[in-house]
Amino acid sequence: MTEPVAGATTERVARAALSRLGEPGDVRLSTLVEQLGANQVFDLLRNEQDLAGVHTDVAARLRGLDPERDLEQAAKAGIRFICPEDDEWPAALDDLNRAEPLQGRGGTPVGLWAKGPMRLGEAAARAVAVVGSRSATSYGAGVASDLGAHLAGQDVCVVSGAAFGIDQAAHRGALAARGPTVAVLACGVDRAYPSAHKNLLDYIGDVGLVVSELPPGCAPTRWRFLSRNRVIAALAQGTVVVEAAVRSGALNTASWAARLHRVLMGVPGPVTSAPSEGVHELIRCRDAALVTKGADVLELVSPAGSFVTAEARGPESPRDRLSAREQRVLDAVPVATHAGGTSIARAAGLSEADVLDVLARMRVKGFVEEVDDRWRLARE
Amino acid sequence: MTEPVAGATTERVARAALSRLGEPGDVRLSTLVEQLGANQVFDLLRNEQDLAGVHTDVAARLRGLDPERDLEQAAKAGIRFICPEDDEWPAALDDLNRAEPLQGRGGTPVGLWAKGPMRLGEAAARAVAVVGSRSATSYGAGVASDLGAHLAGQDVCVVSGAAFGIDQAAHRGALAARGPTVAVLACGVDRAYPSAHKNLLDYIGDVGLVVSELPPGCAPTRWRFLSRNRVIAALAQGTVVVEAAVRSGALNTASWAARLHRVLMGVPGPVTSAPSEGVHELIRCRDAALVTKGADVLELVSPAGSFVTAEARGPESPRDRLSAREQRVLDAVPVATHAGGTSIARAAGLSEADVLDVLARMRVKGFVEEVDDRWRLARE
Repeated sequence: MTEPVAGATTERVARAALSRLGEPGDVRLSTLVEQLGANQVFDLLRNEQDLAGVHTDVAARLRGLDPERDLEQAAKAGIRFICPEDDEWPAALDDLNRAEPLQGRGGTPVGLWAKGPMRLGEAAARAVAVVGSRSATSYGAGVASDLGAHLAGQDVCVVSGAAFGIDQAAHRGALAARGPTVAVLACGVDRAYPSAHKNLLDYIGDVGLVVSELPPGCAPTRWRFLSRNRVIAALAQGTVVVEAAVRSGALNTASWAARLHRVLMGVPGPVTSAPSEGVHELIRCRDAALVTKGADVLELVSPAGSFVTAEARGPESPRDRLSAREQRVLDAVPVATHAGGTSIARAAGLSEADVLDVLARMRVKGFVEEVDDRWRLARE
Repeated sequence: MTEPVAGATTERVARAALSRLGEPGDVRLSTLVEQLGANQVFDLLRNEQDLAGVHTDVAARLRGLDPERDLEQAAKAGIRFICPEDDEWPAALDDLNRAEPLQGRGGTPVGLWAKGPMRLGEAAARAVAVVGSRSATSYGAGVASDLGAHLAGQDVCVVSGAAFGIDQAAHRGALAARGPTVAVLACGVDRAYPSAHKNLLDYIGDVGLVVSELPPGCAPTRWRFLSRNRVIAALAQGTVVVEAAVRSGALNTASWAARLHRVLMGVPGPVTSAPSEGVHELIRCRDAALVTKGADVLELVSPAGSFVTAEARGPESPRDRLSAREQRVLDAVPVATHAGGTSIARAAGLSEADVLDVLARMRVKGFVEEVDDRWRLARE
């Protein structure tokens, strides 16, 4: 056990210590820190105060704890520890302290360990989370990659979890567009999880940002994955779910987005595709907005009116500009044979005088051809 | 010109006459009929009254008109003329007189020519329109057919337009389920349009119902297709659009469904598929409900609470029933090697006493194995 020395540490060191002592998403700890300050909480724990059972839980970890050395070694590895006192701390993360816990997890992280040149606050100021199944289809991966590229190309940071499937595709799309991207891990930022994504994570660490609540060296666990999801949702103005089977972790991120009053979006897919089932449920039952492309997402996360996408329309045909009466006459003109005004008038249900008047105008516009007072449609 | 004889016809004969004189969806005519009655309107037209220009338009068709013979010949061909006075007239059609016109079309039909054993009123009492692109993908056709079969199998009448693609698939699904289906045509019910669907239309006429505003013999025109769509939407409690490119006529039916305050629904598809683009627009911009299967549709068109579909869930795993604390301990137990309580406690961030307590319970439940006070995960 470390020597109990009250008040001998800075707030930053205390936060680094608490980040190693507690588990991410432990609401007791974030509540205590909010009420007493990290320094005070750390002091009390070192002095074996119970603190709602937290001391009992972290006692084993108090032994051998050395937050100054943690910070020093992290710095040597190019890893910084971002605290609420820092300029780059995004106020968005503080929303987590105001949201109801979900499945026993919640609260603002005591700090975030980070590797990479981007400033977290700037990234979070314009950010969209793109998440989804690890077992993505090629359809889902393609859509996620396109979304990532479109958003990052507009300087919107793509936040995701660096997992297989949708996450990977979203990061890749952003990187390929030379745009901003942040990976939020459920293990130390010095670790590559999944290990197959070592290159991807190195690249993001070189040009973007890799962050985690967990100090360097920590391994990922199920608990930590689910806790991590709340950070992904909190860092972004909106979360897009691209493919998620009904038990996908991405739906947990979606729940956090909704709980944090962020924009929740889903990309539809074939109703026959299991990886799209969870997304359809989000749209059907949980008010997620359907999005089909980057522009739709930008419209929803941007200030109202600043990114309005045009409603999709087909190409206009010359016929579209005709009046209803003209269209009725045209409908009544035969394609192959010629017909006289009387017969066209009867077919159109209009008077012969009206019909002849319309036909004369339509000939000028090139819609019909006339031979000896008999008419037929002009060839295209 | 027929002899002007005031008051010499019944309301039914007058309606049959007007159905041949006017074009479907001519709001002037439906308004006149509502205000004056069909008999009076027909009399005035026969007496060359202008009636907001209607007489001028229909003058050519007045020549040679013989509604009694029309009705007689139709009856011989097994075709009846359903009028608002008839028991089987669905009150739902009268909603059309109360809705704003759309693209210059609107109004309740003066009557519907019908072929088939089903009673139109009974069909419309529980009906869903399933419509979509003529150029459907195999995905869309499969979904439409499944929807048609599911709905008709629950005795919900499948209303559609007998066109290629989605319409055909929806009717076929209903027929295959031996359920009710109604085809609404844009030509006389004695004609097969498209001609490739002659067998389909014959079958529907044998077991369901083929209806049209147009008297026997009339040919389809663009104007009539668009007018027809309002009848499809009006006959059903809701309209499901399965695939519709951005210029599909199905979107016109969708607009009618919305205008008539019916339930508007859309089946999503790949965002990369043009035939799904129009449907996504409906969901995104026009508040259509996303539906993925027949049960979703039934839930939306049935009285509230009578057809609630369960939210899709994956199979529950035994781990789901563990407490958060138990899950944290389980996360900390190694898979391959055995570990002692102290090391597991540190990994879990819980006290050793708590961890040993949990482990003992987890061993009973079969989650972990113990050898000499060291633990690892049980093999599956």
